[in-house]
Amino acid sequence: MTLADVRRNFDAAAIGHEMHGLVAELYPICRSITGAGVRDTLARLRRQVPLEVHEVPSGTAVLDWTVPPEWNIRDAWVKNAAGERVVDFGESNLHVLNYSVPVHARMTLDELRPHLYTLPDHPDWIPYRTSYYQERWGFCMRQRELDELPEGEYEVRVDSTLEPGHLTYGEYLLPGRTRGEVLLSSHVCHPSLANDNLSGVVVALFLAQMLRGLELRNSYRFLFIPGTIGSITWLASHQDDVQRIRAGLVLACLGDPGPPTYKRSRRGDTLIDRAAERVLRARGGEPRLREFTPYGYDERQYCSPGFDLPVGSLSRTPHAEFPEYHTSADDLDLVRPEALANSLALVLEIVAALEADRTYLNLSPNGEPQLGRRGLYRSLGGLKDAGVDEMAMLWVLNLSDGRHGILEIAERSGYPLEAIESTVAMLIENGLLAEATE
Amino acid sequence: MTLADVRRNFDAAAIGHEMHGLVAELYPICRSITGAGVRDTLARLRRQVPLEVHEVPSGTAVLDWTVPPEWNIRDAWVKNAAGERVVDFGESNLHVLNYSVPVHARMTLDELRPHLYTLPDHPDWIPYRTSYYQERWGFCMRQRELDELPEGEYEVRVDSTLEPGHLTYGEYLLPGRTRGEVLLSSHVCHPSLANDNLSGVVVALFLAQMLRGLELRNSYRFLFIPGTIGSITWLASHQDDVQRIRAGLVLACLGDPGPPTYKRSRRGDTLIDRAAERVLRARGGEPRLREFTPYGYDERQYCSPGFDLPVGSLSRTPHAEFPEYHTSADDLDLVRPEALANSLALVLEIVAALEADRTYLNLSPNGEPQLGRRGLYRSLGGLKDAGVDEMAMLWVLNLSDGRHGILEIAERSGYPLEAIESTVAMLIENGLLAEATE
Amino acid sequence: MTLADVRRNFDAAAIGHEMHGLVAELYPICRSITGAGVRDTLARLRRQVPLEVHEVPSGTAVLDWTVPPEWNIRDAWVKNAAGERVVDFGESNLHVLNYSVPVHARMTLDELRPHLYTLPDHPDWIPYRTSYYQERWGFCMRQRELDELPEGEYEVRVDSTLEPGHLTYGEYLLPGRTRGEVLLSSHVCHPSLANDNLSGVVVALFLAQMLRGLELRNSYRFLFIPGTIGSITWLASHQDDVQRIRAGLVLACLGDPGPPTYKRSRRGDTLIDRAAERVLRARGGEPRLREFTPYGYDERQYCSPGFDLPVGSLSRTPHAEFPEYHTSADDLDLVRPEALANSLALVLEIVAALEADRTYLNLSPNGEPQLGRRGLYRSLGGLKDAGVDEMAMLWVLNLSDGRHGILEIAERSGYPLEAIESTVAMLIENGLLAEATE
Repeated sequence: MTLADVRRNFDAAAIGHEMHGLVAELYPICRSITGAGVRDTLARLRRQVPLEVHEVPSGTAVLDWTVPPEWNIRDAWVKNAAGERVVDFGESNLHVLNYSVPVHARMTLDELRPHLYTLPDHPDWIPYRTSYYQERWGFCMRQRELDELPEGEYEVRVDSTLEPGHLTYGEYLLPGRTRGEVLLSSHVCHPSLANDNLSGVVVALFLAQMLRGLELRNSYRFLFIPGTIGSITWLASHQDDVQRIRAGLVLACLGDPGPPTYKRSRRGDTLIDRAAERVLRARGGEPRLREFTPYGYDERQYCSPGFDLPVGSLSRTPHAEFPEYHTSADDLDLVRPEALANSLALVLEIVAALEADRTYLNLSPNGEPQLGRRGLYRSLGGLKDAGVDEMAMLWVLNLSDGRHGILEIAERSGYPLEAIESTVAMLIENGLLAEATE
Repeated sequence: MTLADVRRNFDAAAIGHEMHGLVAELYPICRSITGAGVRDTLARLRRQVPLEVHEVPSGTAVLDWTVPPEWNIRDAWVKNAAGERVVDFGESNLHVLNYSVPVHARMTLDELRPHLYTLPDHPDWIPYRTSYYQERWGFCMRQRELDELPEGEYEVRVDSTLEPGHLTYGEYLLPGRTRGEVLLSSHVCHPSLANDNLSGVVVALFLAQMLRGLELRNSYRFLFIPGTIGSITWLASHQDDVQRIRAGLVLACLGDPGPPTYKRSRRGDTLIDRAAERVLRARGGEPRLREFTPYGYDERQYCSPGFDLPVGSLSRTPHAEFPEYHTSADDLDLVRPEALANSLALVLEIVAALEADRTYLNLSPNGEPQLGRRGLYRSLGGLKDAGVDEMAMLWVLNLSDGRHGILEIAERSGYPLEAIESTVAMLIENGLLAEATE
Repeated sequence: MTLADVRRNFDAAAIGHEMHGLVAELYPICRSITGAGVRDTLARLRRQVPLEVHEVPSGTAVLDWTVPPEWNIRDAWVKNAAGERVVDFGESNLHVLNYSVPVHARMTLDELRPHLYTLPDHPDWIPYRTSYYQERWGFCMRQRELDELPEGEYEVRVDSTLEPGHLTYGEYLLPGRTRGEVLLSSHVCHPSLANDNLSGVVVALFLAQMLRGLELRNSYRFLFIPGTIGSITWLASHQDDVQRIRAGLVLACLGDPGPPTYKRSRRGDTLIDRAAERVLRARGGEPRLREFTPYGYDERQYCSPGFDLPVGSLSRTPHAEFPEYHTSADDLDLVRPEALANSLALVLEIVAALEADRTYLNLSPNGEPQLGRRGLYRSLGGLKDAGVDEMAMLWVLNLSDGRHGILEIAERSGYPLEAIESTVAMLIENGLLAEATE
């Protein structure tokens, strides 16, 4: 089984259906940046791929940050005077302000109001709000339901704990033939939000599953981490290892029906930028390419100036540009099986390009090697053009001086990457080419 | 008082009026590259700014040149047979060929003709002509008046001296916090020509007056020098000091009503080029930008290949492109108070950009620093965008790796420079940023 | 006699006539990559230019190749049952598959067919086919004549030898003042084909003849070599000398009426690329410029990654783009006297640009030198513009810092190269400029 087989056998309909099923299965879990939600999610992912699960104690210093206390929640509600739940964590885990400290009190609606978050512009949607680093309690609710609440006394309860514990993240390393790594990072800290980011998590998981067992050149490192604090925690303990990262992608918001969008790495012209642009361009039409900005997801950390890693970001509609972003409308309907499968297929194409982009050395660089003697060139002379295979050979031989990868050779010669790859294989077999050592 | 205060309190109408007043006051003086005219001019300028006045003896070797003898003139005229002055230095000092050697003789009109300069295309204008380095005498006059002269005998007199003396120039150094210098150079050698270059002289003087007493980062060196030989003389005795010049501007022709024009330095992409282009662009419309050419004013010397200094040139209509150039029509009407004030305001903007363009180091470059812990980031999470201030912080932190100045950060982030500057101040205060040492 | 004289005295009509005459004289010779045909051709060329003729033994290892056995041919034919020659080498040397091994046999038409090459799309043209490195015999013929051959028995005869001998090539070195070389390479291995490449051979020869005896800066090395194996043989024994090559041109297909085409060197931005583009642009209209590709003529070898020489290629209609390419229609009618002369004139222009593109040093680089003192600048000041000559001087002085050649100065200043050259001469004479040592 090769990567080419995987791509050839890709059954988008079946895979999309399966991916959407996993999104649906993970959707109800109340995740946060720490706690049981992430653990349960990683446990589910482990049924498909043997992730390592790391637990980093609260209070650990990580770069400029400190791992926060662990948050867990059992229940949360607001009851009216009749004892009926008018806001109920059981209905949607978005109803609780994520990381709410425990509270149990009675108060008037006016006293309660400062703790309530709504979206006046979308009165039927529950917003998603968090307060990780300042102790607060609160509820998120539909504007329409808030408007219907009568004055009077209410009982509020957040049955949570915020105590020393751990930050949990999942990591999966697929070792390749070389030590050069490709980083695939998706944040796993959002509760019932489907596109942001169960879509990214599921694309990464299915990719890991598909790459597993293949003979690959690069090593592939998958991170399922809480946003910001998770990448910072991982970076803090891998400051030397990041040297090995040849390319990386932050995967987020990959399930909505919008066209794919690639956001460039801070450096802007690295291998991942060339590979992703090539793949997006090959879809036809003008690809959606964005310059690096220091906002977004964990590329903020990977591309901080001290690391400046060659990491871009792949989305469909970028975060904050779809109206359902960070609301209860980012649900199982927004995420489509065909969009998930298409995103996975695109990442597979990018992986193929990353695998492909090797650099070779012409072992007979002075003048053309005599291809005819090796049976690689027609013996009859005088014809109008070099044969198709011959031209590909000439291009590969001419540009293989250690400075041009085969993605670039494909671009300049106009040959499909596959033609260049098979030409490379033939030239290696004939002792005319060798992979450049990195 | 800060530079920002100066710019905020800039009263264009009042300043323009005052500037034009000074142009008018200096206008009648018969300046040349040496002699009393420059001394009188500098003495008037010293009433506003304490220039140092340098006197360099005739005969001093300066680079490839030699300081010429000093020229002074008391009177000059052509009298007709009736003894009436038909050309009179008293009417306009342009009437005498600048640097004319003394003469007192009688001759026919035909004998006189080779010594007369006119502008046949502009019969009512007196041309401005010089002969610094070849001994000549002559008169410049209106074509119309020449046409009316009858044949016959004339008496000519140039009551001038050309004797060992000095070349005089003014210099004013405003020391800043750092040794890096900004050079502001204007030629002060032209007689009664208002735009070329009393406008440049007065813009430089008012700028010096406004910057005086401010706490500035750069040092500002103002040169009021005779064209060519003046900058060559100054360069000859400052060959080491020019290393400190971070940016420079030749100021000339800044009073006519045309839009401003920036001519790039020889290198074309230096700090002054970025700063001036930014300021011209900020006016709206397509800025008038010119590539470097080896003709013009003293940028010819500053940008000679042995120095190759980062010095551009700011004008309104560039020299030789307005019809009144080097004629009696370059007078007090051509130069407008509002144009002078606007030119000064533009130079102030450029100075602000030069002051602003510092380079900083993110002191916590690995990952984002935890802004929330320092009260610099909203504590409530999940909102659609970073706050305006937060985005500015993220940009400054991300690009402050010692390679990007804040002019560039402002450009890339889309924030006004002021927003970037206040963000920088806040980050320094919080120990997250430090100025890069140069 | 100078190069300028040569260009000025260029009589296109007379030269074109003479060139075409030599093409016609060489046309009947049966050339191949070895053997008497090349020797006879070089002997004819030596009557005009004293080429050195090199003989390299068969079996010599050259880079990745081996010099093949030497091929010679006396006669070749196919006779029908009546003993009449239906294919006759005497009619056209294209009729024999070039490098055919000897054969003498009787066979049926069906047995003969695999040895016959035709052009079904051009039934009246004989194709040109070769089999240098695989032993074969064969005949090339008109499709129309093949169609008329009755079934039956035929007698075939190729009276050739393929035996240890030599590869022959011609070389002519015109030493210049400097050791920097310009390589002019044309392949001399094709039999009766006029455009490909007697045109290139004759252009090179006439160029050598014209440059001979001139005082030139660069050395000019002319190679008259068999394609591929010839350049490989030369490169193999000149691996150190190629360092001296500053620029080079492969000359081929220079006699057809199409407009000239320049194919860039592998590096794409070398001196020859600038010079050739400048010359083609000066013809007016959009010049035909092609990017480097690893196919074509001997630029394939010169631009192999191990050598990567600054060698481009000049043609009129590029090989394989004219229908007569490699057929009997590439004859004395396809090649036009005026096209040959024009090609020669273009190469002369390119040589002039290569000769011209020197780099100078301003010997008085700090500030402008005082041109007036040397009588190089008008003594009267105040005029609107610098005089034409003065501007050219200022440009040359300003850019002569050792980094800008005069081709570039001409481009940036807008002056014709000739104006820049005469300005350079004048400045050298005045001690203000010196050629930069390389």
